[in-house]
Amino acid sequence: MHVITSRDNAHYKELKQLATSAQARRKAGQSILDGVHLCKTWLQELGMPLLCVVGESALQNAEVRDVVQQCEQSDVRIINVPDALYAPLSQVENGIDLLFLVKTPAPTMPSQLALSAVLLDQVQDPGNLGSIMRSAAAAGVKQIFCASGTTQAWSPKVLRAGMGAHFVLDIFENVDLHALITSARIDVVATSSHTEQSLYDLDLSHPVAWLFGHEGQGVDPALLAAASHRIAIPHLGSMESLNVAASAAVCFFEQVRQLTQR
Amino acid sequence: MHVITSRDNAHYKELKQLATSAQARRKAGQSILDGVHLCKTWLQELGMPLLCVVGESALQNAEVRDVVQQCEQSDVRIINVPDALYAPLSQVENGIDLLFLVKTPAPTMPSQLALSAVLLDQVQDPGNLGSIMRSAAAAGVKQIFCASGTTQAWSPKVLRAGMGAHFVLDIFENVDLHALITSARIDVVATSSHTEQSLYDLDLSHPVAWLFGHEGQGVDPALLAAASHRIAIPHLGSMESLNVAASAAVCFFEQVRQLTQR
Repeated sequence: MHVITSRDNAHYKELKQLATSAQARRKAGQSILDGVHLCKTWLQELGMPLLCVVGESALQNAEVRDVVQQCEQSDVRIINVPDALYAPLSQVENGIDLLFLVKTPAPTMPSQLALSAVLLDQVQDPGNLGSIMRSAAAAGVKQIFCASGTTQAWSPKVLRAGMGAHFVLDIFENVDLHALITSARIDVVATSSHTEQSLYDLDLSHPVAWLFGHEGQGVDPALLAAASHRIAIPHLGSMESLNVAASAAVCFFEQVRQLTQR
Repeated sequence: MHVITSRDNAHYKELKQLATSAQARRKAGQSILDGVHLCKTWLQELGMPLLCVVGESALQNAEVRDVVQQCEQSDVRIINVPDALYAPLSQVENGIDLLFLVKTPAPTMPSQLALSAVLLDQVQDPGNLGSIMRSAAAAGVKQIFCASGTTQAWSPKVLRAGMGAHFVLDIFENVDLHALITSARIDVVATSSHTEQSLYDLDLSHPVAWLFGHEGQGVDPALLAAASHRIAIPHLGSMESLNVAASAAVCFFEQVRQLTQR
């Protein structure tokens, strides 16, 4: 275990740069996983990190010690920092000071949409994106395609909300959704507040791609027009719309219901 | 329209106190609605505010002018402040500078659970609480009961995520959920990861009360034991659980599906 105690240490400065700059992470092709749950899920799903950073006090935590030990056994570099030096690396308040630096997975882009997938255009809120990914992973959807303009999928906030979903999904960013939709081999279903077609009338026994858009403006009209189906979730109350992550959960699990209840 | 230009103005100082202190709002029985959407929805559902505050630049916005005009016609006091004085009143960045000060609705607590309802214990995240309320309002559920330990329902962050749901729901805070559950005239359904019973096997054609708990720990064991049904949402993927607001949306809309698809 390497101990770093100075803010001027070159390795520490590099880590801080990665922890605080989305651009630096993208350029390096690396991501920061902050907290015990994400680190443990990474170990379980994808193996070893590039680097493990642990705050001094966190070493008293049995779960943390177990993660650190696993890393040591695989010769992963472990850096131990005083709690005051951990804080600038983290966006989590009152969390347990453990993080992994990992190589951001870069799956091969499929040539066509053929498996159940989620297409996201201009989703702004990191909590919403993370929740959508978590619901998708729970519903057995494997692929997430994000257009540019959607919040960065591997940011610390999205990772936190995703609770490890990132590690079981294939995530593609800066995707040309129009090209993907027009060449799709499966139906693309978009939610819209301007349609009479109900989600519950769709046959969801085969793979579909779900298209969701901006929290305020909804799906871009050109993409909406290119989709195979425009559907609404029937409402019984006076509220006009659902949060996009709530809509996504309702859609994904209507498919789970149809697949499991026959 | 009253113009306030000094941070030392007594009315301004009082407003700032209300805008920044949950305790001050609770003590006054008042809430702050920040942004055009919430203000318009309040006008539509519940009428006039106690006070309307508008930033100087926002008066160029036609929607804002329309709201201000409606308030003027009903002799609501309107305060116009420079943009620099609006910012400390608001948690919204880059929003449109319009807010209402309103009397927080205080509905009469029913003696027993008899209508479809949501019971929330220890839900921590304001975005989750707002999303649950928004989904409930869209699904035709009218009553929300929050135990102490749940994030404050009328806080600016929850109001923003609720998108106006607060104004069509009856919201009760600091509720003794155990007493409410044990005296309920309807079934209380709790989500749990330790049950084989599927949501999709429940008959939801009658009113039910949905019970949700802490984002990490789930529903408190004593409350879980008191519920009529403990159900799980069937999963197809490897992720073990959904975000609590996503779970709630799936449950509420399974009921909507059963009610509308017969």
